[in-house]
Amino acid sequence: MYDIIVAGAGHAGCEAALAAARLGHNTLLITTDLSAIARMSCNPAIGGVAKGQIAREIDALGGEMGKAIDATGIQFRMLNSSKGPAMHSPRAQADKSAYTAYMRKVIEKEPNLYLLQDAVTGVQVNEGSCTGAIVMSGRSIPCKALILACGTFLNGIIHIGLKHYPGGRTLAEPPVSGLTEQLVSMGFEAGRLKTGTPARIDARSVDYTKVTPQPGDTPPSPFSYNTTDLGERKQLNCYLTATTEETHRILEKGFDRSPLFTGKVQGTGPRYCPSIEDKIFRFKDKKSHHIFLEPEGYDTNEMYVNGLSTSLPEDIQIEAIHSIPGLENTIIIRPGYAIEYDYFYPSQIFSTMETKLVENLYFTGQINGTSGYEEAAAQGLLAGINASRKLQGKSKFTLGRSEAYIGVLIDDLITKETREPYRMFTSAAEHRIILRQDNADRRLLRHGNAVGLQNSAMLSYLEHKEEAITTIRSLLEQIRIRADQPELLQLFSRYGYSKPEGAQRCINLLKRPHISLNDILATSQDAFDRISAVSMEPDILKQVEIDCKYEGYIKREHLVAEKISRLEHHEIPKTFTYENVIGLSSEGKEKLQRHKPETIGQASRIMGVTPADISILMVKLGR
Amino acid sequence: MYDIIVAGAGHAGCEAALAAARLGHNTLLITTDLSAIARMSCNPAIGGVAKGQIAREIDALGGEMGKAIDATGIQFRMLNSSKGPAMHSPRAQADKSAYTAYMRKVIEKEPNLYLLQDAVTGVQVNEGSCTGAIVMSGRSIPCKALILACGTFLNGIIHIGLKHYPGGRTLAEPPVSGLTEQLVSMGFEAGRLKTGTPARIDARSVDYTKVTPQPGDTPPSPFSYNTTDLGERKQLNCYLTATTEETHRILEKGFDRSPLFTGKVQGTGPRYCPSIEDKIFRFKDKKSHHIFLEPEGYDTNEMYVNGLSTSLPEDIQIEAIHSIPGLENTIIIRPGYAIEYDYFYPSQIFSTMETKLVENLYFTGQINGTSGYEEAAAQGLLAGINASRKLQGKSKFTLGRSEAYIGVLIDDLITKETREPYRMFTSAAEHRIILRQDNADRRLLRHGNAVGLQNSAMLSYLEHKEEAITTIRSLLEQIRIRADQPELLQLFSRYGYSKPEGAQRCINLLKRPHISLNDILATSQDAFDRISAVSMEPDILKQVEIDCKYEGYIKREHLVAEKISRLEHHEIPKTFTYENVIGLSSEGKEKLQRHKPETIGQASRIMGVTPADISILMVKLGR
Repeated sequence: MYDIIVAGAGHAGCEAALAAARLGHNTLLITTDLSAIARMSCNPAIGGVAKGQIAREIDALGGEMGKAIDATGIQFRMLNSSKGPAMHSPRAQADKSAYTAYMRKVIEKEPNLYLLQDAVTGVQVNEGSCTGAIVMSGRSIPCKALILACGTFLNGIIHIGLKHYPGGRTLAEPPVSGLTEQLVSMGFEAGRLKTGTPARIDARSVDYTKVTPQPGDTPPSPFSYNTTDLGERKQLNCYLTATTEETHRILEKGFDRSPLFTGKVQGTGPRYCPSIEDKIFRFKDKKSHHIFLEPEGYDTNEMYVNGLSTSLPEDIQIEAIHSIPGLENTIIIRPGYAIEYDYFYPSQIFSTMETKLVENLYFTGQINGTSGYEEAAAQGLLAGINASRKLQGKSKFTLGRSEAYIGVLIDDLITKETREPYRMFTSAAEHRIILRQDNADRRLLRHGNAVGLQNSAMLSYLEHKEEAITTIRSLLEQIRIRADQPELLQLFSRYGYSKPEGAQRCINLLKRPHISLNDILATSQDAFDRISAVSMEPDILKQVEIDCKYEGYIKREHLVAEKISRLEHHEIPKTFTYENVIGLSSEGKEKLQRHKPETIGQASRIMGVTPADISILMVKLGR
Repeated sequence: MYDIIVAGAGHAGCEAALAAARLGHNTLLITTDLSAIARMSCNPAIGGVAKGQIAREIDALGGEMGKAIDATGIQFRMLNSSKGPAMHSPRAQADKSAYTAYMRKVIEKEPNLYLLQDAVTGVQVNEGSCTGAIVMSGRSIPCKALILACGTFLNGIIHIGLKHYPGGRTLAEPPVSGLTEQLVSMGFEAGRLKTGTPARIDARSVDYTKVTPQPGDTPPSPFSYNTTDLGERKQLNCYLTATTEETHRILEKGFDRSPLFTGKVQGTGPRYCPSIEDKIFRFKDKKSHHIFLEPEGYDTNEMYVNGLSTSLPEDIQIEAIHSIPGLENTIIIRPGYAIEYDYFYPSQIFSTMETKLVENLYFTGQINGTSGYEEAAAQGLLAGINASRKLQGKSKFTLGRSEAYIGVLIDDLITKETREPYRMFTSAAEHRIILRQDNADRRLLRHGNAVGLQNSAMLSYLEHKEEAITTIRSLLEQIRIRADQPELLQLFSRYGYSKPEGAQRCINLLKRPHISLNDILATSQDAFDRISAVSMEPDILKQVEIDCKYEGYIKREHLVAEKISRLEHHEIPKTFTYENVIGLSSEGKEKLQRHKPETIGQASRIMGVTPADISILMVKLGR
């Protein structure tokens, strides 16, 4: 008998299954197509703004995504590197086929993990608790916990113009029917969302004289804390071009055959990852939109046309692409499309991803209404960990909003009324100055180790790092540089500062906006000698620098976070009923009843719950 | 505009598209799933009895299959190596995922070849000639020739027990509908076939103490004439086990839920590759059947259970597998199933694979009712070559029954009334003593070069080889070994021959059953010195030896072949009508009318056409 069954081997399912197996559970991963494990059905990339931070967090916790992209990346870039460190976001293009092959290999090598090519079409429940998964043949496979990571497969319909086809993720994959219906019959509430993807083109048919190359960083920085070096990784260019007024004119010609505008698509699309027709319709003044051409691997001609997601008819797509500079003679390898699918309102799950209605049943990934590989993988990891901990009688494992983007993601899901695909943005994180990609290990690696997914070597590495940071920090406090030292005078004049008055503590120098730790090391031989004796690892020096430079912001953020976290620790008993609480607003009462928040903190973030409701609740709960 | 469109990227479609592109045509290959190119949907192996010969022929002609399996093989064996050379059949296990990746890479690197992920759902015909392919969106893509290589996708239905699902090849692939119906409406006659596949199991769950390892050959011999060496290829073992009486009892328990026995499957199955339930039903006396466990790659736990193809219900499959020694605790990764699909009676195509009804429309592979990757690939290659030659105004390219198994295959298809999946056997080839795997290059490489698929380096290699064979042969005729030479006496006594009388010509020694060319080289220093000065390449020595040893048989076979081939050159005009030919048997007339044979040879092999009919026809045609 399996302990844990995971339905779906996309980005969520893979992390869930690996975590469950690595935590010692006999785990079965069920997928309709063993050759499509961790398939990148949309853009061939991991990371990006806010998503890159999530990918780093997954890695710090002991997930697989970071290692997978490091192993199969074909271009690595740190986005927003000219902005502050909270905005730095790693992103990498993947060799799409290699990514799938890597993940399959890792899964197949995992001792407690087994595969089944089948589809989960039903859930077996006994006295309110999930006891098995029902597969296509009708056979029930018993288990102690079931994690549904079905992505966009539930009653998936693919739209291209006014034509539509059954499709689970791509046109080549059949959808799953029956599961939504059974869950709804049990009392779950389902909704309908849509997302889309652009056409893929033949890289050989692009006119490279008309597009702008976008090379990767040199040297490339890895995603995973386990990857020490990306070595001599050969990096491929992406290319930048843009739509023209002609493109927009052509696309508009197809609006009367758009499944979106004619009402054929019922599901709500992602506001922040809109189709090109949405962009043209909503931003009529904009005469041009960026288009990024992204290679899909070393050995393939397929190129992803980022920015041109569309469900307009195929003839319009082809004509529109041919109106974009550089793509005049482009050959289309697959058309773009929209996909509509069922999801379950995520207010129906706890922060552990377990459903409120059925014990030991977990929803994770796109089934919860999210969008994006990283958002899915993060949820999968948390679901795998929590399903495991529950079986082992351990406390739940969740992350706070001030600890991780993953914490923000899951909290938003369960407290906000998600009615459109949820995509992570830095703006969603109120504590983003402390939720940086550079400190994911310092925030989360101990958790990963405590949970059992990071080994002691990784923990020692972190301890060594923290120690070095502290030591260097105190050296910077001790070491002063004489006011008349020529190198210091040079440094000040370089940045236009007025002459220093008296000896300068290094720590104070570092707090000045332009001065970097490297500047200090170059200015003072004493500082160089004593700091380099501790460490010259760039990662460590970078942490010291950020900690010092942003000390004020970071401290303030931690204070706010602490205050809020006190609310988070006010737990609301599972059995608590709101019906008879006098004084609650009627909307507040209804929402609280529906969402069943686990803590006062969660309750306070539910839309429609007022501060007055929270006060009443706190009194009622005797706090 | 494309010259040639190929619908389907299985084993037939890949060879067709590569041949067309390499012969200079702008070619579009359309497939429903770019990640499933050249998918091995059934056994993870190339070659085997008769099929190995076909794979070698494909290679000699300039096809890709041999190179693909050499690049991705995980075990190589020469089957029947203890029998005569006509029975030697190479077979290799493939790393299934690597095979697909290899073929995709080769296709993507081919300059004139383009890919489209879509499905061909219709054929555009203008004045009896094919002018385009219609894809899912309804768009018509113009072309000068269209090759349909749809495999089992046309109205595919997958059966497991009494459950059935739409499926094009696996459960994860949707079938194609509409194309059969359109072709039938144009006058084509379609039938229904079925084939099946066994379950895949987790290699980690096999008890290896109870199964017998089947290692590969050392050293492994490659399939392709381009592969000089398989180097230090790591080979994996297969394993042998067998069904038990208990297995048969369990399987019989499921007969009342068998889609075959209950009449749910309408299509006819392959007689010579039957399901296990077929074997048990038809051979009731047999208490046990061999089961071969075949690994599906280096990095996967999936193992193919050869011999256990079945469409019995999943519960029966699992129980039955657990009753096989070594598989008691086996975990099933995918269940076995039967697939039913449309095919077109192959009497509707010419020997070029072009349809008789629509010009520039070609049917190739499983759509013609064949079974097996090699049979499909061979047809694909011939279709690609012929579609190209027709566009270039060149004569058709076909192979005779005495030239190649491929010739036998296609001739059988177009003259026999195929009503069940056609699988190649050595017994189908009347000239099999000359159609050996070892001389595929000598038979076909010149054709490959003349057609344009083999370069001059390969031709020079062949010329050098033929020259060496002739020279060594004449040396063997010249060199005599003295009767009293001790090594000769030893040799004779070793094989129990009576003492030689007088000096022995080497050629005569070699004609004795047991004496090998190596024996002769070891016996006579003179022979060794003079022959080794020409060549010591094992392949060349092997040819000399076979030519000498089987000289009588080979000569006789060539004589017969020549006589028959004369009939093949009696062409029947395309416009010839049988209606008014007096004296033809009524069945003969009907069959001739239906099959429209291209030559008297073809006519003579049509079932129901009598020798008397042939005589009348020859008189009528003025021969």
